[in-house]
Amino acid sequence: MKFERKDLLGLEDLTREEIEFILRTTESFVEISERPIKKVPMMRGLTVVNLFFEPSTRTRTSFELAEKRLSADTVNISASTSATVKGETLKDTAKNIEAMSIDMLVVRHSASGAPHFLAGVLDCPVINAGDGAHEHPTQALLDLFTAKQRVGRLDGLEVGIVGDILHSRVARSNIWGFTKLGAKVTVCGPPTLMPPGIESMGVDVAYDLDALLPKLDILMLLRIQTERLTQCFFPSLREYAELFGVDGKRMERAKKDVVVMHPGPLNRGVEITPEVADGPNSVILEQVKYGLAVRMAVLYLLSGGEPGAQAV
Amino acid sequence: MKFERKDLLGLEDLTREEIEFILRTTESFVEISERPIKKVPMMRGLTVVNLFFEPSTRTRTSFELAEKRLSADTVNISASTSATVKGETLKDTAKNIEAMSIDMLVVRHSASGAPHFLAGVLDCPVINAGDGAHEHPTQALLDLFTAKQRVGRLDGLEVGIVGDILHSRVARSNIWGFTKLGAKVTVCGPPTLMPPGIESMGVDVAYDLDALLPKLDILMLLRIQTERLTQCFFPSLREYAELFGVDGKRMERAKKDVVVMHPGPLNRGVEITPEVADGPNSVILEQVKYGLAVRMAVLYLLSGGEPGAQAV
Amino acid sequence: MKFERKDLLGLEDLTREEIEFILRTTESFVEISERPIKKVPMMRGLTVVNLFFEPSTRTRTSFELAEKRLSADTVNISASTSATVKGETLKDTAKNIEAMSIDMLVVRHSASGAPHFLAGVLDCPVINAGDGAHEHPTQALLDLFTAKQRVGRLDGLEVGIVGDILHSRVARSNIWGFTKLGAKVTVCGPPTLMPPGIESMGVDVAYDLDALLPKLDILMLLRIQTERLTQCFFPSLREYAELFGVDGKRMERAKKDVVVMHPGPLNRGVEITPEVADGPNSVILEQVKYGLAVRMAVLYLLSGGEPGAQAV
Repeated sequence: MKFERKDLLGLEDLTREEIEFILRTTESFVEISERPIKKVPMMRGLTVVNLFFEPSTRTRTSFELAEKRLSADTVNISASTSATVKGETLKDTAKNIEAMSIDMLVVRHSASGAPHFLAGVLDCPVINAGDGAHEHPTQALLDLFTAKQRVGRLDGLEVGIVGDILHSRVARSNIWGFTKLGAKVTVCGPPTLMPPGIESMGVDVAYDLDALLPKLDILMLLRIQTERLTQCFFPSLREYAELFGVDGKRMERAKKDVVVMHPGPLNRGVEITPEVADGPNSVILEQVKYGLAVRMAVLYLLSGGEPGAQAV
Repeated sequence: MKFERKDLLGLEDLTREEIEFILRTTESFVEISERPIKKVPMMRGLTVVNLFFEPSTRTRTSFELAEKRLSADTVNISASTSATVKGETLKDTAKNIEAMSIDMLVVRHSASGAPHFLAGVLDCPVINAGDGAHEHPTQALLDLFTAKQRVGRLDGLEVGIVGDILHSRVARSNIWGFTKLGAKVTVCGPPTLMPPGIESMGVDVAYDLDALLPKLDILMLLRIQTERLTQCFFPSLREYAELFGVDGKRMERAKKDVVVMHPGPLNRGVEITPEVADGPNSVILEQVKYGLAVRMAVLYLLSGGEPGAQAV
Repeated sequence: MKFERKDLLGLEDLTREEIEFILRTTESFVEISERPIKKVPMMRGLTVVNLFFEPSTRTRTSFELAEKRLSADTVNISASTSATVKGETLKDTAKNIEAMSIDMLVVRHSASGAPHFLAGVLDCPVINAGDGAHEHPTQALLDLFTAKQRVGRLDGLEVGIVGDILHSRVARSNIWGFTKLGAKVTVCGPPTLMPPGIESMGVDVAYDLDALLPKLDILMLLRIQTERLTQCFFPSLREYAELFGVDGKRMERAKKDVVVMHPGPLNRGVEITPEVADGPNSVILEQVKYGLAVRMAVLYLLSGGEPGAQAV
């Protein structure tokens, strides 16, 4: 099998087979990341531009490390220095980048659909590193990979995604990913942070975390983005923590081997306590580790790599 | 022939032969940019510092890509993080960079003459990436190259440069370049944006674009820098667009094969409409493409390269 | 001998033998920096992250150049884009970086002890690039190296460190370094900028520079950080300059061959006049030059290099 897509824009577009293919390819890259020398020559001579219209440390760093481990050359462009502040249209930015004949574009943008627009304009592969409240496909892929590594399978798993579903591209991509791979997803959070009609994505909706918790195999906690929730979506962080935050006491209601996930960065004491974040059920750091391998796999596949060739 | 200059500071300094030599060298680099693997080893082991005292996306990105395609190592320093905010003099900044034995410096500065000052202090080659309202030589070189590619010659061409001549380093470098290569340049714009005595550079001055348009072979539109024109240089953007903006209707007055150029980023609807910017006469994206090749040529020549050696 | 430390956190921790070993290793890297091609393959395939929670040009640039000359891949993370602005703890930032399996971390932080904390959490080597008012070990190492190059020895030298001792990590690291290597250190400055109990570090304290000056072999002037001294530590910059600034007239009191050092950036006219900064006694640019070599040596030793191997 060969990966036939030009771009990675979201998990909504991908088939189960394509997602599984990316996850299988990721396994080789996990192995590479455990070598003393983690660098492989698969993208030697190719240039990747990381175009971030929103600030980001962890995602940008993970992509940049992944690109460098594949021996690609990287150029970072951040919003604050970008010509868009001079009023240039997104299309003109895209055509300009195209004219420089780069080999791949990784883009984060606050507007949903911006990467899709760029992918339509550009001949080179485009990877969505997060667009508005829409999708964040490499995050969901790394979540799928991490869950599968821990549990051994994804089919039939009960997955709970808890928190600010309304604004979360991570939730949306994970809903597509987990349901396509045979898991059952329930989203849970305050009614004000639940998008109307979310059931049409094939998920159940719950408002009582304590009632949901006992049946979950995967408990994915979302970050409460205190810097974004300027409108009054809930009375206080304290009330949120009481109803939807997970601490050691609440964990007693969960299965012994429930897998606790969080995309980071953590608000310790809000959606998760240190006892849980650093406890035996947490795979939060595995998520970061596998994130790099997933991104190497995606970069490699979109650059035309054939599976098997990666063992250089 | 060998390029004997230590620095590239402006086109005013260069002879016709030197400019033509850079343009000929550029041709090889255009070819390299069309290969699947665009990277060549000509600057392997050398370090280029991109020191930008003014924000820039397109020029910085173009230089960084050019450097990486030549296998140079690059270090970016931007004004906001620079020690100059701590009150260091430009000379001290220069001597400090010199002490680190870098191999080449690309510098943009808001003060006219800053690159010349640095070139006098530093032993390594210095490339002016734009200084105040003075010169932007690589922009003019890419404009010359693009015009020549499209028309086949520069000698005898009628060139119109339209817009804010007063603040434009792009205009100034292009005036030197086009006139040295045998073209006839007319500058055109509102009287408030026309530098007194500009005729001494060997150009004609026009205030009526409609009258000028029919005779032009090259129509170069400058960006109205709305972020800089805080003083009241003209009544409104709308009036500017009516008198000096180019739309499809105004284009009817031009020669059928007039070449439309713009250094970017575009203010669509102000100095140029989408119909013209994206139309058959526009070479705006060729300018970006050739910009990379011109910068590779300049970096290569200043690093001591000999023409012919580039086909590695 | 082999360098057995995992990290370089400060000179307080190091023995005389360890410091001398780093200085000896530095000599090879000075030689490398004088070659036409300054790049060596010692860290090929390794990734260094430069994590700067405080803005920095010269130190970050020096480290980045040193890393690239050793053929390491580099990733820069600056505070303003860092997840810490989203409220992440330093430990979580560290564990996240760890999970990405990087090979080395260079860190600057406004909090004293932050690099030590990170070194305890991370398996990879950590280099302190300056922590609060605590230590700046690579600065002191380059100062030691520069002084030794100029004078020929450090043992028995009379060293005066002049200025804002209270806030200076440079002073603190140099006190440890020079005293361990057998020099006698006197600190000198306004009483308000003298930390109480500084004598316990084994230094003399002086408040009268004119009285101190004649006996000094090394005169190290510290930068008056006008941007930090918001509290009123002294009446005016002018009074500071009169009492502790060094000009040509004051230099007449010093030994003919006194060595004048300054960590930069210079406040010309405050702690030092141009006549002195650019005069024959000044080694300020040697400090910058040797800084790169010292950092190459430290990176090399912590990456597991064995002395002698560097002549690749």
